[in-house]
Amino acid sequence: MAPEPPATRAQCEALDAADPLAFARARFRLPAGVTYLDGNSLGALPADTPARVARTVEREWGEGLIGSWNAAGWIDQPQRLGARIAPLVGASADEVVCADSTSINLFKLAAAALKLRPGRPVILADAEDFPTDLYMLQGLAGLVGGVEVRALPEAAWGEALAGADVALLVSSHVNYRTGAVRDMAGWTARAHAAGALALWDLSHSAGAIVVELDACEADFAIGCGYKYLNGGPGAPAWLYVARRWQAEAQNPLSGWLGHAAPFAFEPGYREGEGMARWLCGTPSVLGMAALEAGLDTFDGVDMAAVEAKAQALCALFAATVEREAPGVFGSALPQGARRASHVSLRHPDGYAMVQALIAEGVVGDFRAPDILRFGFTPLYLGHAQVFDAACKVAEMAMSGRWRDPRFSVRAAVT
Amino acid sequence: MAPEPPATRAQCEALDAADPLAFARARFRLPAGVTYLDGNSLGALPADTPARVARTVEREWGEGLIGSWNAAGWIDQPQRLGARIAPLVGASADEVVCADSTSINLFKLAAAALKLRPGRPVILADAEDFPTDLYMLQGLAGLVGGVEVRALPEAAWGEALAGADVALLVSSHVNYRTGAVRDMAGWTARAHAAGALALWDLSHSAGAIVVELDACEADFAIGCGYKYLNGGPGAPAWLYVARRWQAEAQNPLSGWLGHAAPFAFEPGYREGEGMARWLCGTPSVLGMAALEAGLDTFDGVDMAAVEAKAQALCALFAATVEREAPGVFGSALPQGARRASHVSLRHPDGYAMVQALIAEGVVGDFRAPDILRFGFTPLYLGHAQVFDAACKVAEMAMSGRWRDPRFSVRAAVT
Repeated sequence: MAPEPPATRAQCEALDAADPLAFARARFRLPAGVTYLDGNSLGALPADTPARVARTVEREWGEGLIGSWNAAGWIDQPQRLGARIAPLVGASADEVVCADSTSINLFKLAAAALKLRPGRPVILADAEDFPTDLYMLQGLAGLVGGVEVRALPEAAWGEALAGADVALLVSSHVNYRTGAVRDMAGWTARAHAAGALALWDLSHSAGAIVVELDACEADFAIGCGYKYLNGGPGAPAWLYVARRWQAEAQNPLSGWLGHAAPFAFEPGYREGEGMARWLCGTPSVLGMAALEAGLDTFDGVDMAAVEAKAQALCALFAATVEREAPGVFGSALPQGARRASHVSLRHPDGYAMVQALIAEGVVGDFRAPDILRFGFTPLYLGHAQVFDAACKVAEMAMSGRWRDPRFSVRAAVT
Repeated sequence: MAPEPPATRAQCEALDAADPLAFARARFRLPAGVTYLDGNSLGALPADTPARVARTVEREWGEGLIGSWNAAGWIDQPQRLGARIAPLVGASADEVVCADSTSINLFKLAAAALKLRPGRPVILADAEDFPTDLYMLQGLAGLVGGVEVRALPEAAWGEALAGADVALLVSSHVNYRTGAVRDMAGWTARAHAAGALALWDLSHSAGAIVVELDACEADFAIGCGYKYLNGGPGAPAWLYVARRWQAEAQNPLSGWLGHAAPFAFEPGYREGEGMARWLCGTPSVLGMAALEAGLDTFDGVDMAAVEAKAQALCALFAATVEREAPGVFGSALPQGARRASHVSLRHPDGYAMVQALIAEGVVGDFRAPDILRFGFTPLYLGHAQVFDAACKVAEMAMSGRWRDPRFSVRAAVT
């Protein structure tokens, strides 16, 4: 049973003084006067990233030019970074590689899964998943023909799996809106029992909570680099293939860097060994450099400690808002669900409230139609800061300052 | 008829003094003591790029955080940069968008072409094309079934098109090994006459020579950002869709940023307008920032002048090498072919020669089995410098210094 969240700022300060992750705060640069509760959308800038990127641009590219593919190790970046991500998600170093975008990686793996389960035309997907996952599956189905994407709420997955026509279950580990954690071990086992494979999108869990891909016997996973991994805007994504599938699974986006001998320039594609075949075109070296610096922020960090602190911060935030503004907000978290690392409040005027809070230095984000979303990144947030932010959210809601018309103007990205 | 190339260094210096593109040299940072003849593989670092990238990292990401998607215009980068590339390739601003890698973009467009030409199961490809293009088409064919990738040398394309089963002709505009320019207008017309569409890979021509996609009535094109566009290692790629196909052609990699309303988080995919639908996942913002600075190097640059100077530099280099080392090298350029912006010499010991030249400051590259490849980028190379480099290549070949065993050790990337 989790302890009751602290009810006073003094108690929060005491928790901060004893915080085993306090050392990590110095690894980030954050603007003064801002409490950043949107690391679940875009992680904050690591302190070492500017120098790391500048080195790549000025020394590796500017001085080393084309020779840096070898001399600066650019060519090994996808595997090197994959090996850094692996321990954060309970995988072996040779089961993860960095490449392309999360959407593209989903396409590769879902297509591969269909080939591994011939005669099973259905991809079962979480109807509440982040839409790009659904869109990519729809695109795949439209391309190959004879494939059905069945998007259903979690409550209907059991029945769907019983049909013996499901090739693959696709779900996010953590729901992007509610913050609820899916039972990865349980659903993977149920998928396997039904003859299907399981693919997990870890965009909202990698670097946020404990993930155990190997222990859960997951088949495939994908994730992004720009949220909790702090890789910067549009950072390269990554993918995981369980070792037992690595020889058999085929990447339909068979670009030259996935070839067994990319620089032999052979006319026919031959799949590379292990995770190499999941590469496609030339990777973003600058993006990889920034992601590498982002992964450095996890050096010596225990993911169990991260998850524990994330849980504590979420509970503190939710309890404080409710105490200071009782009954104002609904909760998006389904009853009884396990929460990952963000708190989603509901309010019909959520959009304007989020904009007003941003204007006053508390940065969360809004998810249509009515969710105010606040992410808690234990590497750079403390209890007292979260306590203050919760008080501010409550005070803003009560004050009505968010009714100022300027806060209702929708931006391109919300 | 092109003028005879200059035969003396003094003549070269006179040409440099009158060079209408001389102003562009200051737009690049190049290491001292190096003549960089590999801008066709990785363009040199523009002088403004370090500051541009640092601004994106430190100010836009570090200070602006998630708000920079709107405030710093990240969300508009793909279209904004596409509009900058368009005039370099003879396209309208609304026909080009930046996204993903060249390989991925080829996949999108080839898949779209198949849907536009139902009942035609053949993709006709250049057997001598850069292999990733062939590999991607093979992957597409393996995924959708019933599609044949017919890779043939140019001499056999006419007969292949006569078969009335070709949906799409795919070719690079410039052959990556020989430097030969394909007849884009002629082959596009022949493809159309045969009921097929034409897709051009402009990786070795965009920013190097005059390209007229609209005037040639090309249907689709792709290209990379890291060669002549100077966008940096692994820069985002781009794609072109002729306006007449924009409403009909469908992107099978239908990610959220290609959706008509990405932030409405609808469960079903609805295609965005115009080129927006060719986006997929979240783009690399750092890569886009560097590419934008790369495109700035073309401000006020006339592509006809670029092509004329590239031709002059290629001719100067080839003639000087032949004069100083007669009969030592073969030429990879087919008899009578039009040359783009690089010179490819043949020699059985080419690999070692290229390595030895790199060690002495003349940077070209090697393409198996026997090609020494030297690229000439008019924005940062001058005639005298190319004259000196050609003399160095000839002198190296004659000297035998390349026989030192260390020059035969193959690096990961060659």
